Amino acid sequence: MTRRPDCGVGHVPGAPATLPDRAGPAHRRGVARTVTTLVRVKICVLAGGVGGARFLLGARRLLGLDTESARAGSPHRIDAVVNVGDDAWMHGVRICPDLDTCMYTLGGGIDPERGWGHAGETWNCRDELAAYGVQPDWFGLGDKDLATHLVRTQMLDAGYRLTHVTEALSTRWSPGVRLLPVTDDRCETHVVVTGGTADDGTGAGDAATPGDGPDADAPGPRAIHFQEWWVKHRAQLTPSGFVQVGADAATPTPETLEAIETADLVVVAPSNPVVSVGAILAVPGIRAALRSTPAPVVGLSPVIGGAVLRGMADTCLTAIGVETSATAVARHYGARSGTGLLDGWLVAPGDAPADGSGAVDGVAIREVPLLMTDPDATADMVAAAIDLAGLEVPARTDR
Amino acid sequence: MTRRPDCGVGHVPGAPATLPDRAGPAHRRGVARTVTTLVRVKICVLAGGVGGARFLLGARRLLGLDTESARAGSPHRIDAVVNVGDDAWMHGVRICPDLDTCMYTLGGGIDPERGWGHAGETWNCRDELAAYGVQPDWFGLGDKDLATHLVRTQMLDAGYRLTHVTEALSTRWSPGVRLLPVTDDRCETHVVVTGGTADDGTGAGDAATPGDGPDADAPGPRAIHFQEWWVKHRAQLTPSGFVQVGADAATPTPETLEAIETADLVVVAPSNPVVSVGAILAVPGIRAALRSTPAPVVGLSPVIGGAVLRGMADTCLTAIGVETSATAVARHYGARSGTGLLDGWLVAPGDAPADGSGAVDGVAIREVPLLMTDPDATADMVAAAIDLAGLEVPARTDR
Repeated sequence: MTRRPDCGVGHVPGAPATLPDRAGPAHRRGVARTVTTLVRVKICVLAGGVGGARFLLGARRLLGLDTESARAGSPHRIDAVVNVGDDAWMHGVRICPDLDTCMYTLGGGIDPERGWGHAGETWNCRDELAAYGVQPDWFGLGDKDLATHLVRTQMLDAGYRLTHVTEALSTRWSPGVRLLPVTDDRCETHVVVTGGTADDGTGAGDAATPGDGPDADAPGPRAIHFQEWWVKHRAQLTPSGFVQVGADAATPTPETLEAIETADLVVVAPSNPVVSVGAILAVPGIRAALRSTPAPVVGLSPVIGGAVLRGMADTCLTAIGVETSATAVARHYGARSGTGLLDGWLVAPGDAPADGSGAVDGVAIREVPLLMTDPDATADMVAAAIDLAGLEVPARTDR
Repeated sequence: MTRRPDCGVGHVPGAPATLPDRAGPAHRRGVARTVTTLVRVKICVLAGGVGGARFLLGARRLLGLDTESARAGSPHRIDAVVNVGDDAWMHGVRICPDLDTCMYTLGGGIDPERGWGHAGETWNCRDELAAYGVQPDWFGLGDKDLATHLVRTQMLDAGYRLTHVTEALSTRWSPGVRLLPVTDDRCETHVVVTGGTADDGTGAGDAATPGDGPDADAPGPRAIHFQEWWVKHRAQLTPSGFVQVGADAATPTPETLEAIETADLVVVAPSNPVVSVGAILAVPGIRAALRSTPAPVVGLSPVIGGAVLRGMADTCLTAIGVETSATAVARHYGARSGTGLLDGWLVAPGDAPADGSGAVDGVAIREVPLLMTDPDATADMVAAAIDLAGLEVPARTDR
């Protein structure tokens, strides 16, 4: 980060930085305040899949990093710390849905309708796997998508870290954002459920197996892989909690820690607070890194008007006892000045507490449109996060 | 095998059995001879890929094993001992071209034009792999085909033997023939070549690597994987020899040895004598099993009128100093009464020595049409092999 010398903001590295301490509450009312203009900006985004990818499109647009030629001359950088809790082994290949969704979206290869997977995808291999009757039969690997998994699996088998594998895969897609798995270790989200059937064939986390006895058709509480819950059961099994299998032995990558520690701004994308952002935070060391980085941390609410636009964040929030509201999610993340993560919080118009309070002590809150309808609208959200942090990026010349 | 008691043929198990000893030279002139009628017949076929698969279609037709219902009531059995010298790891999955060609052909899923791969195949994964720039870029995995490789690779990784993997895969295709890899071990055919480029990316058997020095563009003799020679170089690099990498540590499977030892008749399909049949024979123990089985061994010439119909057997024969003629191939295999493998040898009309001799001492020879134009024509070839062996199978009722 290069700060213009005439507008530096005092900050003690390593000490918790909170927005109110830096820019003061005045900026929330739109009056004059101290602003740090960043000539060279490093933004670190905590991101999940579809929502995270679209948010990154906006960040890239805002910083003028949409094209390779623009990137070649740009001092700016975006690091995305991406959730790997959805990752799984399927049919012998390693799938990383959130990393791939970010990579395909930023690389222009995503299916725009689904929001995940390849445009023009075919499913012939999936159909053949079904003809063989192999499990899991509920997870469809696209033919194009398989290439990514084959390359990744080979590199992992050869001993490369997922971080380096992702970098190698990104060479082809040129996402313009450094995609960083939060950890190179397995740290997979499992969902604690009751009911359904246990014969899912993944062998992952099942407490019961078919034919176990009279209860085999109505298994008791068990932890199933997130993919099984989301894809096979379409989130229809009510979760009673989430477990990150492998978290005890997982560590953040050096690249992720560096991205958080050297950022000018950390942004928590409006991704699922439980199974996307929550799974990132579950990696031991990430929470501490977010609390100690000199950069302000600003989050964007995934809840708009008491509902989520996409996915099943409401179900997940309910499962962990958090109300589906912008304020409740902010309280769940907490303030950095307390024991939490946030310095600032962007909510949709009408979602701030009516009394004008900050909702969470120590967290600056601001209402801005939060619909990621296109990269320009999303860029405005990123700009609002930068602004809320008391920072300023030189105006883009391409809008 | 159940022989009718009134027409048993004396044979000492373990001793080399030669057709002339059993049926006498008279049968070559079409006169009366001793015939053993098999009520329950076990035929063991040594087979390569496309040619071997088509030959098996004929054997299945002859024995009335074309349909599942027919097989359910049939006492007959066909075991195919299949070449695995073409097998390779590609993009992290295990490919077994000859086993798959036999399986798809007998299972009705083969592409009838190419003779290999799936009917209605697509190549989207291959194109994506190419977009990633990963090697090898000259080997196209079909999307449907990939499913077979994924299932196989997972089972191999789980510790199953290739024999059991093939059995599991065959459950879906129901080939009506027991497909037996000659060995569960890696025993891969490499081709000794000079010239071409060494930067093939397989890393398999290359003596030279790119940028090795002034000779990098014109590498010296080196052994490249059969697939590289055949698929990448389209057999245009003149081979100076063939090496079975892994042969020193490979053993035949118990199933293969049992198939050879308990057969009523062993047939060497008209497959490539060098890289198909030769690669089977290169597995230590196979040659001894063929020499000691009580069953007669009858081969079919892949050379017709001094040429091969398909593939590159002529190039392979030339490389090992064998003339491309039916007689030369018979001499290459040799007589069981000597140090070789054959009791009988079927050649195309006009390909027997003009002087009426047997071409190879101790090998009965007969001229029959050898074009595998369809399963019925091929069934006649199999019937001729059975007849040449002095055996008889009850007439089929479905023709």
